[in-house]
Amino acid sequence: MRAVRLIRPGSFVGLDLITSDIPSGTPRDVAIRLHAASLNYRDGLITKGQYPGFVRDKVVPLSDGAGEVIAVGSAVTRAAVGDRVVIHCLPRWIDGAFDSSFVREGFGVSIDGMLSDHAVVDEEAIVKIPDYLSYEEAASLPCAAVSAWNALTDRQSLQPGQTVLVLGTGGVSLFALQISRMFGARVIATTSSAAKAEKLRTLGAAVVLNYQETTDWDGAVLQHTGGLGVDRVVEVGGAGTINRSIACTKAGGHIGLVGFVSGFGATLDPVSVLGRGITLKGIGIGSRVQFESLLRAMSAHRIHPVIDRVFAFEDFRSAFQLLDAGTYVGKILIKID
Amino acid sequence: MRAVRLIRPGSFVGLDLITSDIPSGTPRDVAIRLHAASLNYRDGLITKGQYPGFVRDKVVPLSDGAGEVIAVGSAVTRAAVGDRVVIHCLPRWIDGAFDSSFVREGFGVSIDGMLSDHAVVDEEAIVKIPDYLSYEEAASLPCAAVSAWNALTDRQSLQPGQTVLVLGTGGVSLFALQISRMFGARVIATTSSAAKAEKLRTLGAAVVLNYQETTDWDGAVLQHTGGLGVDRVVEVGGAGTINRSIACTKAGGHIGLVGFVSGFGATLDPVSVLGRGITLKGIGIGSRVQFESLLRAMSAHRIHPVIDRVFAFEDFRSAFQLLDAGTYVGKILIKID
Amino acid sequence: MRAVRLIRPGSFVGLDLITSDIPSGTPRDVAIRLHAASLNYRDGLITKGQYPGFVRDKVVPLSDGAGEVIAVGSAVTRAAVGDRVVIHCLPRWIDGAFDSSFVREGFGVSIDGMLSDHAVVDEEAIVKIPDYLSYEEAASLPCAAVSAWNALTDRQSLQPGQTVLVLGTGGVSLFALQISRMFGARVIATTSSAAKAEKLRTLGAAVVLNYQETTDWDGAVLQHTGGLGVDRVVEVGGAGTINRSIACTKAGGHIGLVGFVSGFGATLDPVSVLGRGITLKGIGIGSRVQFESLLRAMSAHRIHPVIDRVFAFEDFRSAFQLLDAGTYVGKILIKID
Amino acid sequence: MRAVRLIRPGSFVGLDLITSDIPSGTPRDVAIRLHAASLNYRDGLITKGQYPGFVRDKVVPLSDGAGEVIAVGSAVTRAAVGDRVVIHCLPRWIDGAFDSSFVREGFGVSIDGMLSDHAVVDEEAIVKIPDYLSYEEAASLPCAAVSAWNALTDRQSLQPGQTVLVLGTGGVSLFALQISRMFGARVIATTSSAAKAEKLRTLGAAVVLNYQETTDWDGAVLQHTGGLGVDRVVEVGGAGTINRSIACTKAGGHIGLVGFVSGFGATLDPVSVLGRGITLKGIGIGSRVQFESLLRAMSAHRIHPVIDRVFAFEDFRSAFQLLDAGTYVGKILIKID
Repeated sequence: MRAVRLIRPGSFVGLDLITSDIPSGTPRDVAIRLHAASLNYRDGLITKGQYPGFVRDKVVPLSDGAGEVIAVGSAVTRAAVGDRVVIHCLPRWIDGAFDSSFVREGFGVSIDGMLSDHAVVDEEAIVKIPDYLSYEEAASLPCAAVSAWNALTDRQSLQPGQTVLVLGTGGVSLFALQISRMFGARVIATTSSAAKAEKLRTLGAAVVLNYQETTDWDGAVLQHTGGLGVDRVVEVGGAGTINRSIACTKAGGHIGLVGFVSGFGATLDPVSVLGRGITLKGIGIGSRVQFESLLRAMSAHRIHPVIDRVFAFEDFRSAFQLLDAGTYVGKILIKID
Repeated sequence: MRAVRLIRPGSFVGLDLITSDIPSGTPRDVAIRLHAASLNYRDGLITKGQYPGFVRDKVVPLSDGAGEVIAVGSAVTRAAVGDRVVIHCLPRWIDGAFDSSFVREGFGVSIDGMLSDHAVVDEEAIVKIPDYLSYEEAASLPCAAVSAWNALTDRQSLQPGQTVLVLGTGGVSLFALQISRMFGARVIATTSSAAKAEKLRTLGAAVVLNYQETTDWDGAVLQHTGGLGVDRVVEVGGAGTINRSIACTKAGGHIGLVGFVSGFGATLDPVSVLGRGITLKGIGIGSRVQFESLLRAMSAHRIHPVIDRVFAFEDFRSAFQLLDAGTYVGKILIKID
Repeated sequence: MRAVRLIRPGSFVGLDLITSDIPSGTPRDVAIRLHAASLNYRDGLITKGQYPGFVRDKVVPLSDGAGEVIAVGSAVTRAAVGDRVVIHCLPRWIDGAFDSSFVREGFGVSIDGMLSDHAVVDEEAIVKIPDYLSYEEAASLPCAAVSAWNALTDRQSLQPGQTVLVLGTGGVSLFALQISRMFGARVIATTSSAAKAEKLRTLGAAVVLNYQETTDWDGAVLQHTGGLGVDRVVEVGGAGTINRSIACTKAGGHIGLVGFVSGFGATLDPVSVLGRGITLKGIGIGSRVQFESLLRAMSAHRIHPVIDRVFAFEDFRSAFQLLDAGTYVGKILIKID
Repeated sequence: MRAVRLIRPGSFVGLDLITSDIPSGTPRDVAIRLHAASLNYRDGLITKGQYPGFVRDKVVPLSDGAGEVIAVGSAVTRAAVGDRVVIHCLPRWIDGAFDSSFVREGFGVSIDGMLSDHAVVDEEAIVKIPDYLSYEEAASLPCAAVSAWNALTDRQSLQPGQTVLVLGTGGVSLFALQISRMFGARVIATTSSAAKAEKLRTLGAAVVLNYQETTDWDGAVLQHTGGLGVDRVVEVGGAGTINRSIACTKAGGHIGLVGFVSGFGATLDPVSVLGRGITLKGIGIGSRVQFESLLRAMSAHRIHPVIDRVFAFEDFRSAFQLLDAGTYVGKILIKID
């Protein structure tokens, strides 16, 4: 099989395409011919050697992949040859609450990932792809869409008529917008350009705030919510946005911390958090059961992910280059023929 | 003021229209000129003297009413003269879990209700009516729609892509159908006629089963859910339906027990409940905060209740007669000029 | 290896001791030399051919076993040779909510169980035994104690000062009593003899009711709870007790349905359940994470299970005979040398 | 009646004892002859004019008080003359989630508080005092003990065998320790002196860390939890402790943010929160139903609050002086004869 490995961390130039044997599996494993993989913000940090956690030496990067089952172990009950499947990126997290043991097996981080034409995984790690989604669309989901779903359904899930704040037009934020709309919720989104604003409106955002024009965007969010603030925030910005997100969250509201694009290190304001009973919850992706719930919801509403661009397998370095540039809306995909 | 009182329990013929003074209020009370009231199944039992709980002597019946605030006590902060309001039928249940003390103040049961042209209530009991709803529409909600909302949001609320079973075309079931659709869920409904089936489809039911033709309707529900069963049931039938409802509920699923139109006294099947981790929850209407959440959701989706017929105040006995006959779809209303 | 198999369902006489090879495992499996197994009410039904679910042909009975790890597959991370482990009886239920797929692999029911001197299981199925517990004590836990823990911690777990009702002196009920005491809760127990009452008091029951003397025991429970009723019931009786359990449960209270010793088929009273917001939840044992939480709690309090009698492996038929007779307090164990 | 009012914010010297009429009540109010009041950290900020929220002009300070009912309004059902009662400090928060409207009526902040010999409050605001507690003990609970209970029972409550971290020997931390012990949980406590350490051990702390000797106290907490971290933290320190608290919390763990004694303004570490699924929840005291649950638990275990010193009513300024000095263990009380 052909797989890309991170030989020289520091830049995507350090990624090399290498040929090796397909690993042999156990009776509970399934072998998959991968057809698509997607990139997440985290993959850039890993490639650059900046990821603040353990990364396997010479790892095959990318947590997200989808393909066709080509062989199953003798004890497998959840899949059959020919099934179209997407791989859950934390294969040991099946259901329930987060546990630190799960990250010991994280595709593309602590174990080999999806920038490859084959993968051999435990049958518990796979989820069937609904017929209406392509391999590229399915491969866009495991990290970003499951994180967004987790942030919006943790404990008590979102209700119709509630308001959600999403930040920007990255993968997680667009999924959070689409998921909120499936729940019948109202979405306020921030962005930096008229073109992106148009995209957000097309996807169903009720209010779009250009944060370069409306510099007091948290004040504007309060105005658009009758002074009360939003019920939930899917927070991906980090240091540059977290205090504003808190300021425009309702008393008793919920902020899912999914990312930290602009860095963390923010000095939190005590009165806003303590005095208003707000919850800040770190979202470490999600469980396979959450992924299945997400797909059930998407299928019922025939939701298609927003894909910015699809690269050929051989052009994998260009995909990382675009990730680095940050000039994309939605997801960056790699097609694996 | 004019109010109808239950003078001779046993029949709606025992209801008499009586004139009295408007009760004086406390500094936390609001006085309301009622413009509409609605009937629920329970009100028939009360009138007939068949209600299995305490009923106040010579009670003013009906738990559900809506009107305009005409005076407020000196300490009132939640309302102003001129506000259009609907009254929450268990005024002491503001938020949180059910408590038996709440039923000591149940409008139309243990304290005087809404079949009157005036009501004086604690400010905590009122909820503002969204502009797009009429007084009749608002008065249709307190008991039936709040029960349906509670059944569908208890603990973990409904998610898009989940499937809900509703039984028949009474008030609770139609609200359960409309609420499920707001959550992006799929609804399977049962009914007994082609005309009612058409109404259910118009409201968004994905599958409608005529239980007179499809006598094995629980088997049909299983077929329509890939053999797994539904995620939630809003159970209003009682003895005649509960075991079938259990049989077609998913492992780990949730059945909200809202009513018992066909009597209770069912012999439950052990394997279905124990071996499949099903929850049966008695739904004693709901809290004011749940009522507010319901209205927020309805407003966002501009949902209008289904009203079968509106009677004039003087024709109140005819309204009870229709309730008794059972030949209505949705809610029976009384307009109070 | 030596294992007992159910050759002729209908009676424990139909169990035969048979010698075979130890099954080979996968890289994720662990091989265990079993030292103890325990019996549950369900095992009697299975042996008699009366279990209302799928039972594997010639199954090795018993869901509960404990022993020492003697070999591990190459990919195993959760165990090492020499570890003292107890096996979770539904090996696919790791965490989260119940799912019907879990029962496809139920030890002693749909797959071979623990009445054997060896078992080979997926590493996810094992839980380490705290040092202070013997193999016999550990083997008493998987089905009965995990069910009791699940019934008392489902959704919102028990709180100090709450009151729990337990019925009789079977395994589940005694574990429910011990667990309730660990949470600082107060326990009311029912029983039929002075000797058993003494045992219940020794284990910490605050109130013990002899249901043969106090025939109105549910009325007595109400008296002992200031007329309000208990917060939770661990219901094991079924038809003979369920309505009395409901009658003496607090409004908003929770009844975990764990067993049906006296049959089911009860006609439920509508007013008690609906009008008082009571939850009835079928408890299908529990997850491995719940088992681990139970052991953590037991370890902190150095709780020892109540064992009625330990039989030698060869006397397995006598163990089933005692189970059938019903004259035991706590658990029946088999020592496997 | 005699009441102390904050005439010149800036220091406790600005508090003056003033005589006025007892306010008249509504039919739902109860009049209470106060016998005790207690001080919280917040009361110092209010007196100094440093509280970061709205404070009523010339407010009667102190949120926490207890006394005897001397009169009840005509509609009161929850109390009778002669009842020994403690007042819930956010009278509008009866049950359910926090809502910003509750703080509009906060005793000693936005409405007159308990440094007075009389109070007239809505009947929903009172909670009966268990017989075994004195007025001083009861008056120590409303703000500090309810906050600790809320932090430890929010969503899923504490379980036996779990580990809790408490910081120092202030009122909230000592209550958190006592409550954790009632749940059968294990407590790790930090402190700065051998004498305080002894007090913590007497109250049941399993591990006490002197943070002046063990400067890497978060590392020590990890060591005492097998490297996993604690299940819950009741965080009162703020900027000086929050990152260490996060560092020694288990993946998936819960931090209740109750106070900020050492200031806030901490720069949070992203990997710890996001990558480990930790929840930070602002605790804005709690509901009356939580207060009642706390009292039920305390009664079952006959728990007595830790009171540092009781001042006479006339010595109220000395009480504030001690609060300012910070040299107390547990609660500062005022006896109102």
